[in-house]
Amino acid sequence: MSRSAKPAGTRDVLPDEMRELRAISRAIVDVLEEAGYGEVRAPALESEGGSFAEGLVPTSPYRLVDGNGETLVLRSDMTVPIARIAATRYASVQPPLRFSYLARAWRRIERGSGEAREFMQAGAELLGQQPTLAEAEVLGVLARVLDAAGLRDWRICVGDSGLVSRLLESAGADQGVSAAVARALTDADFVALDAVLSGVDGGAAVAAIARKRIDADELAGTARGLADQVGADALGPLEQLVGALPDELRTRTIVDFGLSPRIGYYGGLVFEVYDPSFGRPIGSGGRYDRLMEAAGRPMTAVGFSLDVELVHAAIAGEERGEGGAQ
Amino acid sequence: MSRSAKPAGTRDVLPDEMRELRAISRAIVDVLEEAGYGEVRAPALESEGGSFAEGLVPTSPYRLVDGNGETLVLRSDMTVPIARIAATRYASVQPPLRFSYLARAWRRIERGSGEAREFMQAGAELLGQQPTLAEAEVLGVLARVLDAAGLRDWRICVGDSGLVSRLLESAGADQGVSAAVARALTDADFVALDAVLSGVDGGAAVAAIARKRIDADELAGTARGLADQVGADALGPLEQLVGALPDELRTRTIVDFGLSPRIGYYGGLVFEVYDPSFGRPIGSGGRYDRLMEAAGRPMTAVGFSLDVELVHAAIAGEERGEGGAQ
Repeated sequence: MSRSAKPAGTRDVLPDEMRELRAISRAIVDVLEEAGYGEVRAPALESEGGSFAEGLVPTSPYRLVDGNGETLVLRSDMTVPIARIAATRYASVQPPLRFSYLARAWRRIERGSGEAREFMQAGAELLGQQPTLAEAEVLGVLARVLDAAGLRDWRICVGDSGLVSRLLESAGADQGVSAAVARALTDADFVALDAVLSGVDGGAAVAAIARKRIDADELAGTARGLADQVGADALGPLEQLVGALPDELRTRTIVDFGLSPRIGYYGGLVFEVYDPSFGRPIGSGGRYDRLMEAAGRPMTAVGFSLDVELVHAAIAGEERGEGGAQ
Repeated sequence: MSRSAKPAGTRDVLPDEMRELRAISRAIVDVLEEAGYGEVRAPALESEGGSFAEGLVPTSPYRLVDGNGETLVLRSDMTVPIARIAATRYASVQPPLRFSYLARAWRRIERGSGEAREFMQAGAELLGQQPTLAEAEVLGVLARVLDAAGLRDWRICVGDSGLVSRLLESAGADQGVSAAVARALTDADFVALDAVLSGVDGGAAVAAIARKRIDADELAGTARGLADQVGADALGPLEQLVGALPDELRTRTIVDFGLSPRIGYYGGLVFEVYDPSFGRPIGSGGRYDRLMEAAGRPMTAVGFSLDVELVHAAIAGEERGEGGAQ
């Protein structure tokens, strides 16, 4: 279609699908507002260069020069603008601060990958709350959002992005090994992981732990079993989080000891949202205190974002009975 | 603020304002859905070059090269994508077709103008309906939308973009004069208008007509009075439209004989939405059959778009009692 002005990685949404996406989006926004997370809107176009987030987020592939010679980029998420808003417009407001959004974002795609270049995100950010309370609150709100959206079989997979590096540190591995392991985990490349760890004392045990995924209910038992290898301290943050979750949420939670963040501003708790009817994460989130520090307002920060179109696809999959737990 | 990543002409919307904007947006979308205008979403990024709309819309100042070397632009409206969707995805669907949208668009701004670079539009498009029915239906839906949004004192100002050029043609003016007059009217530059028309036989009468704004209720009488100067034919399209409006809408309608479209795809009916509490148009629309022809599916096309933030500003102005009609 030579007349088409629709680039690869973008698509039109027609009325029947739009009605469903709108119902999901409104349900999410309403739950977040009720929970005290006020919706904000931020510019899609951001100034390039000089941003506090430089080095913590991938460089945007969508860079343009406007009529006045200013270089602009399309935002890749809403977490960075909300960190900016908290540090500037709310500079004198006492935390905790709660924000939500429903917004388009843009990301780099590989040609022919079939990935979406533009996507609609819904999410929430909690800033300046006591860490364990903050993490448990955000996961609890996420659960309410997923229920309200109409998803039945969702699971949240949590991890501690510092766990493996702490284990490697106690094993005496150097920083080069740690960095190579982090890369392998981000790519979920377990062949590379084994190769890197084969030369490290105790590396096989770390590799085994990094592969482990268990139900959160089993964490206490597993932690006792692993205590000799990893020390109770290393698992402490995950134990604290899992202990703070209400029963009905803990039974939906999986612990992935090797879960690694894909974005540089995350550190500590990271999580992904799954549904058995859909083959990849439909949302993600975690702690990003280091982004708030870079923004000039250091505080505990936890947030999540959902890809609204993937949530919709997962609901459709459940309705077709794909991968259902029941 | 060197830490800010917010370029000129963009702004953040914080929760209190966002709640009001969301209520307005939802009310508009719901009225449009009820009226049979199904909401669509289209990519914000469009391929540059080879678009059927080339020459009918301003060149985008937001041009970028993505990682794969493709040149993309940010859309400047939703009318062009909807024309594309109607000509492709709905190629075999019998008209009339009705679409609506709530979407961000981007436009060129002058440095320091205080104008918005990014704006949120809500609008509707009616394709393939009998012309007078189509124009009256779209204006009627627009009226319902404005009421539902919570605006009290709105007015619609209608014009016929072909009127002045038809008058100049009967006066024997050449095309250069017609083009200069069209530019002067688009810029609402009446000094330039008088200068151009001073050298034309009957130019003073045309200039006087182009300046005239009357209540739609007075059109029949005015038309009789103007008949000698302009011929009944020249006013025919406006008389037909005004005759097709229900009373309660006609009393809100103003006829502006010199109203000129700002976008190249409009021809025939053009209109703007005003509120006495706000100094400039909060929305606009008109006939764009020539865009459908360029898209390869020639048919009658009428649509409107509202700037949601300006609608909100006008409502706030009414609440403060500014410029109220009562």
